[in-house]
Amino acid sequence: MRRRNFLKGIGASSLVVGVTAGQVEPVRAKTEYRWRMITTWPRNFPGLGTGANQLASLIGEMSGGRMEVEVYGADELVPAFGVLDAVSHGTAEMGHGSAQYWKGRSQAAQFFSSVPFGMTAQEVNGWIYHGGGLELWSELYGKFGLVPAPAGNSGVQMGGWFNKEIETVEDLKGLKMRIPGLGGEVLARAGGIPVDLPGGDLFAALEEGRIDAAEWVGPYNDLAFGLYKVAKYYYYPGWHEPGTVMEAIVNKRAYESLPVDLQSILMNACKVVNQDMLAEYTARNPAAMQTLMQKHGVELRRFPVEVIDRLSSLADEVTAEVARKDELTSRVHASYKKFLAQSKEWSALSDLTYLQARAEV
Amino acid sequence: MRRRNFLKGIGASSLVVGVTAGQVEPVRAKTEYRWRMITTWPRNFPGLGTGANQLASLIGEMSGGRMEVEVYGADELVPAFGVLDAVSHGTAEMGHGSAQYWKGRSQAAQFFSSVPFGMTAQEVNGWIYHGGGLELWSELYGKFGLVPAPAGNSGVQMGGWFNKEIETVEDLKGLKMRIPGLGGEVLARAGGIPVDLPGGDLFAALEEGRIDAAEWVGPYNDLAFGLYKVAKYYYYPGWHEPGTVMEAIVNKRAYESLPVDLQSILMNACKVVNQDMLAEYTARNPAAMQTLMQKHGVELRRFPVEVIDRLSSLADEVTAEVARKDELTSRVHASYKKFLAQSKEWSALSDLTYLQARAEV
Repeated sequence: MRRRNFLKGIGASSLVVGVTAGQVEPVRAKTEYRWRMITTWPRNFPGLGTGANQLASLIGEMSGGRMEVEVYGADELVPAFGVLDAVSHGTAEMGHGSAQYWKGRSQAAQFFSSVPFGMTAQEVNGWIYHGGGLELWSELYGKFGLVPAPAGNSGVQMGGWFNKEIETVEDLKGLKMRIPGLGGEVLARAGGIPVDLPGGDLFAALEEGRIDAAEWVGPYNDLAFGLYKVAKYYYYPGWHEPGTVMEAIVNKRAYESLPVDLQSILMNACKVVNQDMLAEYTARNPAAMQTLMQKHGVELRRFPVEVIDRLSSLADEVTAEVARKDELTSRVHASYKKFLAQSKEWSALSDLTYLQARAEV
Repeated sequence: MRRRNFLKGIGASSLVVGVTAGQVEPVRAKTEYRWRMITTWPRNFPGLGTGANQLASLIGEMSGGRMEVEVYGADELVPAFGVLDAVSHGTAEMGHGSAQYWKGRSQAAQFFSSVPFGMTAQEVNGWIYHGGGLELWSELYGKFGLVPAPAGNSGVQMGGWFNKEIETVEDLKGLKMRIPGLGGEVLARAGGIPVDLPGGDLFAALEEGRIDAAEWVGPYNDLAFGLYKVAKYYYYPGWHEPGTVMEAIVNKRAYESLPVDLQSILMNACKVVNQDMLAEYTARNPAAMQTLMQKHGVELRRFPVEVIDRLSSLADEVTAEVARKDELTSRVHASYKKFLAQSKEWSALSDLTYLQARAEV
């Protein structure tokens, strides 16, 4: 005979339920919290949209159904780039996207998605969870009435799709390219014209010639959008997004209305998705790359050293300038920069040296 | 007025509890499941022991106290290397350790911790969660009445502590070194004498000259054990453990006795710890390395190319031989090898090329 007690808190008496020995009843609590999650991705988009779905499922599963979250794709409730404002205003309790989409609201936000020549996924997790990053991010998003959490990572992205070869920095001049966030600023500094577009609009923009080039994520996602149909050269490495963090944003009042166990379930579900999305990309990218090259004849190109060097110098300029925008951005930049410097030293003894050794033998 | 219902399953009537508007009561359920977690680590050991503690805390927190897990350090309930058997027999409901410690029970187990010249943390998560790894691991541990889950990762480790310089493969001959799992087999093949020792016994063994050299984890953990006091040279990279998985093992009957929401909380807590431990190492290793070098005068050495080449050939031999032990080990090896091959191709376009570009500019 197993006995099961629930103490209901203030004024509640406890209820003892008898369960037949050897049988474990599923907890089928009535749903107490029905939330909506709006996203910047097309519904069910591989990795990104399915990651948002997984986040919702985990919350339902771990809470035994006490909390259920319904996921909306971009433009179903609000436009992709309207997610931050909508969650801030309480139109939906939570959202899923990437902080670089909000540079119009806050320059500092960009450091919590991706920085050109910045940290990899593993490094940025170190900074956010154990290097002071999350505290700064929470302070920043607190101004919008939001609680942020990392909830997905792409790993090192690809450099993008081009219809002409990039042999020198000159080739970037006048190039109209979809590239958001700080990477876009770097392109502008190199003479290109960065364009901000939600993923769902990319294919049409390239096809119709409204843009000349585009970066999206990596093989798994770029194959799903069919970008190989409208561009010829696929460049690497993704200097502009070496470990892009996807974010969950939660309306602060809604968050505070949850009991502590559901707050914990929500935040830990974000951590699970943060890891799982990266694992999924790591598992799916290789086969997608083979399909792109072997089936669709995509031509792989590596950015020349000269181009990488120039973009790297410009990236330092851009981030240093952005850091001067305001006091909080300056602190975010300083924290990021310090962590990155120590990460570079450590990766020289660990990941970089190991991957080199493994590749050479 | 918020209404809260719990449906208790078979034969239970629901209970409606009134809560004062605007106030959220913490869920303070009576503890239904009190479990014990035995570990292979000294209690509270940084990263490893604290990771086990975190796993227990998360389960308590997300379950609102319905499930509480008490953590035991190595030798408190059973010896470090007795953890697998004890959880298998139900002495404790769960354990925390690393699969390479169980090679006496199963050669295949080693592939679920670390493989010399094998996958990094990011890659192994791809394999385990999205490449068929967890299914094979579950099949293997099912034979011991256990459910396995990744629950921590060290990232790329260091190559170990030596009192003489390793200039050629000859220098490894006769070397008595603490190095477990497949890495130990490789050392044996190179003429060395691998010794299996739990972490807690390392310092004394080195100090008393029972071993000549030892690898443990990396700067953060090696500093904590004070290994710099008994060895002079600190080698990199950790060719033998490029992304060691820590494991949670759960007694299968105990696992099946849990309701599905607690099963989900348990397994997702493992995922959270799996990511968080790696993030912690990534954040703590750089400062620990500086302390080792600047404060304690540790001399850093890189394994010569010739040594790396030879160890890599031997690693291929060892894993291929281990694969022939039995049918399941052969399937595990084949799955690991296939995933590793595609990971190498992808890292050449992503992490490796990116880290090189970032280091060179």
